[in-house]
Parts: sequence; C-alpha cells; structure tokens
Amino acid sequence: MRLIDLIRKKRDGGELTTDEIAFVVSGYTAGDFPDYQISAWLMAVLLRGMSRPEIAALTGAMLNSGEVLDWSDLPEKKVDKHSTGGVGDKTSLSIAPIAAAGGVRVPMISGRGLGHTGGTLDKLESIPGFNVNLSAKQMRQILEQCGACLIGQTASIVPADKKMYALRDVTGTVESPALICASIMSKKLAEGIDALVLDVKTGSGAFMKKESDAIHLAELMVETGERMGKKVVALITDMDQPLGRCVGNALEVAECVEVLRGGGPQDLVDLSLDLAAWMLYLGERTSSLEEARKLSASLIADGSAFNKFRELTRLQGGDDKSLQNVSLLPQARSKQDVLSPQAGFVNRMDCEKVGVASLVLGGGREKKEDTIDPAVGIVLHKKVGDKVAAGEPLCTLHYNSSARLAEARNLIEASYSFSATTVGARGPMVRRIIQSKSSHAGAQD
Amino acid sequence: MRLIDLIRKKRDGGELTTDEIAFVVSGYTAGDFPDYQISAWLMAVLLRGMSRPEIAALTGAMLNSGEVLDWSDLPEKKVDKHSTGGVGDKTSLSIAPIAAAGGVRVPMISGRGLGHTGGTLDKLESIPGFNVNLSAKQMRQILEQCGACLIGQTASIVPADKKMYALRDVTGTVESPALICASIMSKKLAEGIDALVLDVKTGSGAFMKKESDAIHLAELMVETGERMGKKVVALITDMDQPLGRCVGNALEVAECVEVLRGGGPQDLVDLSLDLAAWMLYLGERTSSLEEARKLSASLIADGSAFNKFRELTRLQGGDDKSLQNVSLLPQARSKQDVLSPQAGFVNRMDCEKVGVASLVLGGGREKKEDTIDPAVGIVLHKKVGDKVAAGEPLCTLHYNSSARLAEARNLIEASYSFSATTVGARGPMVRRIIQSKSSHAGAQD
Repeated sequence: MRLIDLIRKKRDGGELTTDEIAFVVSGYTAGDFPDYQISAWLMAVLLRGMSRPEIAALTGAMLNSGEVLDWSDLPEKKVDKHSTGGVGDKTSLSIAPIAAAGGVRVPMISGRGLGHTGGTLDKLESIPGFNVNLSAKQMRQILEQCGACLIGQTASIVPADKKMYALRDVTGTVESPALICASIMSKKLAEGIDALVLDVKTGSGAFMKKESDAIHLAELMVETGERMGKKVVALITDMDQPLGRCVGNALEVAECVEVLRGGGPQDLVDLSLDLAAWMLYLGERTSSLEEARKLSASLIADGSAFNKFRELTRLQGGDDKSLQNVSLLPQARSKQDVLSPQAGFVNRMDCEKVGVASLVLGGGREKKEDTIDPAVGIVLHKKVGDKVAAGEPLCTLHYNSSARLAEARNLIEASYSFSATTVGARGPMVRRIIQSKSSHAGAQD
Repeated sequence: MRLIDLIRKKRDGGELTTDEIAFVVSGYTAGDFPDYQISAWLMAVLLRGMSRPEIAALTGAMLNSGEVLDWSDLPEKKVDKHSTGGVGDKTSLSIAPIAAAGGVRVPMISGRGLGHTGGTLDKLESIPGFNVNLSAKQMRQILEQCGACLIGQTASIVPADKKMYALRDVTGTVESPALICASIMSKKLAEGIDALVLDVKTGSGAFMKKESDAIHLAELMVETGERMGKKVVALITDMDQPLGRCVGNALEVAECVEVLRGGGPQDLVDLSLDLAAWMLYLGERTSSLEEARKLSASLIADGSAFNKFRELTRLQGGDDKSLQNVSLLPQARSKQDVLSPQAGFVNRMDCEKVGVASLVLGGGREKKEDTIDPAVGIVLHKKVGDKVAAGEPLCTLHYNSSARLAEARNLIEASYSFSATTVGARGPMVRRIIQSKSSHAGAQD
C-alpha cells in the first residue's frame, strides 16, 4: 500500500477501505509520512467528503492511535456529554454532578476555550486549587469514589488527532464535517464510555451558524457512534444568544452553582435538565426520558447534585468553600455597565460578538499560548425578547484592565439589535433531537 | 495577505487575484511557506480548478520566479515546439534543424524521459559527445551561429516549477490541467520565444488518453500563451501507436537522420513537416501555412536541414560523423525478433506497453535517478493496418542484457491486437488544430 495511491483515490472521489484509512492514520502518527502528503490527503477528504463507513473507519483508526480508557470493571454505565462549543456554554459543570449523583459514571475529558468560545477546563480552573491535569490512575480513583471526574486531554489519548488537528489548523482543512466528526468521536470514545450525549450548537454564537450544517454533523456523529457500538443522541440546541446570563470563567462557575442550588436562569436550567436526563436515560438509570428528567430535577432539589459538585471539586484539589460562598471565587476589580442606546425590545444578539468581548477583557484566548484571567467577563441583564428603557443597563462588564475595555464595549453595543415591538422570548433550547437506533431503546436493551 | 486565507479561498471555489497568486508562488520559491501548506493549496487548485485569468497569473508568477532568456537583439523570430510526450516521439530532433534552416531561431529547452515516454535530452546524448548542459552564454553563441540550440533545464529558469513539481509528484497533484498548463507554459515562455507550436498527444501512448482531455489542455495552453502576448498553436496528434518505427534513443536519432535525408516512415515525415511548417509560419518566414510546408519539404530535399543538424551537433560537442554514418551511433550487442502469434491484420496497439518494453530493456527510466542505455530499443515492422502472417516478425528488440528480455517480449506481445480483416491504416496524424487569435494572422501581423 502506498500513501500516494490513497491520496489519488480520495482525490478522484473513491471510497477508502478500513485498512487504507488505518494505514494513513497509523503511518502519520508513527511519523512515517510527511506533513505535505497528509495535508494534500486532508484537502482531498474535505473537498470529496467521506462516506459513513469511511468516517467510522477514520474514527476507529484515530481512537486506536493511543490509549483507550477502560472502566469495564465498574458496574455502572459510563456516560459523557460533548458540546460543539458556544458562548456561556457551561453545562458540563452543571450536568456532570447531576448525572453522577443519579448513578452513572462520567469520565469527562474536556478542552480549553479558543476564540469566542469558552472551555470547560478554564472554567474549572477558576475554582481555587482545582486540578484538571490528572493521570488515568488518579482519574480512576476519583471516578470510583464520586462517579465523575473532569480532566484535560492527555498525550496518550488519540495522539493522531493532536497531530492531525495541528496540521488541519494551518492548511485550511478544519471545516470538514467528516474530519470534525472523527476528531470529536475518537476523543470521546477513548474515554471508555457506553453512551454519549452530544450538544450540537447552532446560531450566531456557534461554529455551525446554519442549522442544516449542525444537523448534518450531528447525524454523522450519531451514526458513527452507533457503528462503534455506542448509544448516542444529539440535541441541536440554540446558540443565537449566550446561554444563561454569565460569560466568563468564574462567573460561569457561580451561575452553575446557582443552578445546582435550585436557581439560575431558565434557559440554562432547562438545557441542564435535558442533557442530564439524556445521560441518565442512556445510562439506563430510568426506563423513560420523562422519568430521567424528573430524577434530574429531584437531584437538584434534594441537594445531592450540588453536594456531588463539592465532592468532585475537593477530590480534584479544589476549594469547595468557594462553591458554598461564590464570593470566594476570583472577582474582577472593576465593573462597568453598558447602557441601552434606545428604548424598545431586544430582538437579536450577535452571540459571537459577546464571546469575543469576553475574550477581549482577558477571559479567552486568541492564540493557544495566551493566558486567561478567570475573574473577568460579562453579566447580561437583557436578552432576546426583553423590554429595555433608554439608558438602562444591557449588561455589566467585569474587568481588571481597561486596556481593551472600549473594544469590548463596542462589541457588546454592536451585538444588540432592538425593535419597537417584542419578538417574544427565545424558542425552545432544544430545536431537534437526533437519535441512533440503540439510543431509542433506553433501559429496555 | 496570509497564505491560509488563500488556501481557504481556493478551497471554497473562489477566484484568486494576480497578486494573490504571485504571493503564493514567490513566497514558496523564497522558502517562506512550508510544503504542507502549498500541497493543501495545490490539492484545492486541482479539485476546484482555475479560471483562465488565474492560469495566466500562475504562469506569469512562475515565469518570473527565475531568469527569462532574452534574444530580442537577434532580428529573427524565436520559435519553439513542445510535445506533451509519447512513444517514439522524436520530432524535436527532426524539426529544430528544419526550422533553423528555414530562418527562425529555436532556443529549445527539453526534458528527459520518465516512465513510458522518451526524452529529447536522452536521445541527443546518444550522439557521442553531444552536450546538453550549456550555459545561457554558450546557448547564445550557438543560437547566433546556427539558429538552433537544444539544451536541458537550468537551475535559474523557473525555479518555482522545479520546487512545485517535486511536491506535486508526491502529493497526487500532478493531474491538474491548470497546473500542467502553467508548468509547461512558464518553462517555454522563459526561453524568450515569440511563438510556440504545441504537439498535444492523445491516445494509448499519451498522458492524456482521452482526446477531450488533450483538447482541454491544448485550449488552456493556447489561451494562456495568447494572454502572455505570444503566438501559439496546438496540434492534437495521434499517439495510439508509436510515432515512426523506432523506439529507443540511438535508434530514434538514426530515424530522424533518415527523415532529414528525405526518407523515413510516412507518419514521422508528415508530422515533422506539419510541426516545422507551423514554426516557420508563426515565425513569419512565409505568408501561409501551405507555403511553410513546401519550404520545410524543400529544406529537406536540398540537404540544408540535415546540414543544420550536423552543424548543431558539432557546435554542441557531438560527433557529426555518427549522423553521416549512423552505424557509429551506439549499437546493441543482441537482437531478437518478436513473431506474430497469428495471421491477420494489426488492428490496435497498446502504445504505452511498447514504451514500457523499451524502458524494461534499459532505454528508459522508472525513477529519475536511473541511468539509461542509449543503444537499446525496439524497431517495429508491423503497425496498425498492416497485414501479418503467423510467425512473421512484428518487431525486433535491440538489447544488451537479457535480464528483463522476457518481460519486454511479454509487453510487446500484449501490445498487439489482431483482426481477420483490415481496419485500414491510421488516420491523419493531426486530429485537430487549436489556434490563438494572433496565430491565425501569421506573417501579416
């Protein structure tokens, strides 16, 4: 088998076999193939596409490029959630404790924020002492003890993706649904899970602005998971405005604490309950989704979900007193309101601009090497459908440096659109549900 | 301007500007861009294609990556011919002397054979002493003195193509009409010519097996030449069987000598006269193509073309006595006939197999590093349309080693097909003529 022939085959629209795809991935990971051949192959994949069997083969080959975690000795189902990323998207922190409290194991490996989107690891690290850099052995101890563990990517898991993503990033080959699907699914399946809930964002703050693109990716991921023998569901959810009211790392942790204590903004509560319910249902803790949603709500109401979050935080080295009293989380030195330029109703938000505004204040990264300020961010007082008076605060900026404050203000001002009459509140958070065959069966399997 | 944005633009089907294309080519030639980004860009170009203005811009950018020869002080028109390559395709050696004898200057830069096709430089080097590695200064002296000079590619001419072609070769990005066109045209235009005759081969021995592909490439090259201010014509010619009767380096030189002395096989004579006539016509030596064809024939008949070939050979260090007496050219030690397995008529030849048979005997190269044996090759006794008795020789193999003789025999046997009734002789050598607007005007310009 020669790589050049496989480049030509894909270039000419051919379908690669499982062996051929494994040859490309294992050879590249082993350093046998130069970047310039793989980048040509990646561009051919992007422009010619991949069939469902090819995507499953690519996912499998990437998965097998490194360590696959194994918790098969633990009797409970292992379930995770993955989001394609958005602004104020903090549900990993609210639902991992609910699901663990409900009796599934959550071995969650997350990423950091880049560009306008936040990252779960950055949010967790705003909790004083919280350590996301754990070994597989430490992860096992915590998973056994409290049922959830949230860590960062390790070098031994899916090394093929690390190498390939770095190349895709500089060769214009990121935006391929097949490659995105294989990248996400290989990393999630390397967690050794039985079931996966995908939160595929769509709207002005999502990577996939068009709902049809989000649905297409969701379908690819669900089918790929199914082909790999996992239960997978994808929720297509709204990211046309930030989720909840807080954007920024410590601010989002505090908002999750609110939710876990029975409060919090309705959109965040709704989506947290939906996602946690799917995790419990696919994890066979209930025989229906409705039951799972009730269970999730009761785990909040009786305090067990919040206690789980505190336990998890303690086990990962974090100061759980800062969850009990969120004023102990990092606080910005200065605050400034952005006032509404007019009276009326908020009829649209450019959600990505809000994410960039938080980045500009220091809450995110433009480049991977950038460090972030956990304290800064934005608290929204007005969202789509809200009535607003001229001069009334739209949001409050939390900042430590005024260096780029004006830029952040401009972004926020540009993100809001107004109308004279109300457009109504946002629609349902979950726009569509895409299920694999096996995920329909739930606990009856 | 950032390369990544230009990769994305082409990937998404956009049309690159002249400046953008110049940025890619000059940056790559200067070593500013890594191979892995350029190979992704090349694959995007191959799959998305290029518009005619983009191809002209690419040709111009490549042309300007190195030295462009300048003979503008010489009063005669500078004209060259380029062939896309075939089997037994030796016309450079027959027509450069005719055209130079007819009064145009021929500053011809040629290549070597690779795979099943022969190369002009290899053929010339089978003449004892013939030196194709001349400097631009030496080329000028010879061009001034005798009107034609045939040399190999130098490092200073179109370095962008050298670098880009090496990358295309290993990344599956050779087969792009836009890239092929820019590669050929930039090298030819770097010769400092006024007009160019393109011999675009089609058929079983050509790179473009399908006539429609050959026509498409020819149209691109003609239009590109026109956009660069040159007179260009392309002849789409038959390569469904070898040209002439000889395949192999010294054998082909001897066959060209036959043509220049008024003999030779009819197909080779016809094509040589057609190509030489177009060179003289575009070089404004005659006011019609018919006149140019008559002039070409008379330059053979009166011996001036052959004398020009001898003069050129002497000036380039070659032994012109070996042209006078071709038995002084390298001769293979052994010969063996391949006999016809049946009686009937030759109705088809797989021309590429004949080329590979010559390669297998040592007359060609599988890899660039291979050395060739100038003496070996194949002399065909039967071609398409010929009647043959069972056991009658189809061809004679000339060889020095019997190591791969059986393989060559098998290829030859597999290349011939027979039928009970004749299919008639081959059609006209020139299947179609594609002209630029300016090339129609000829000497009247």
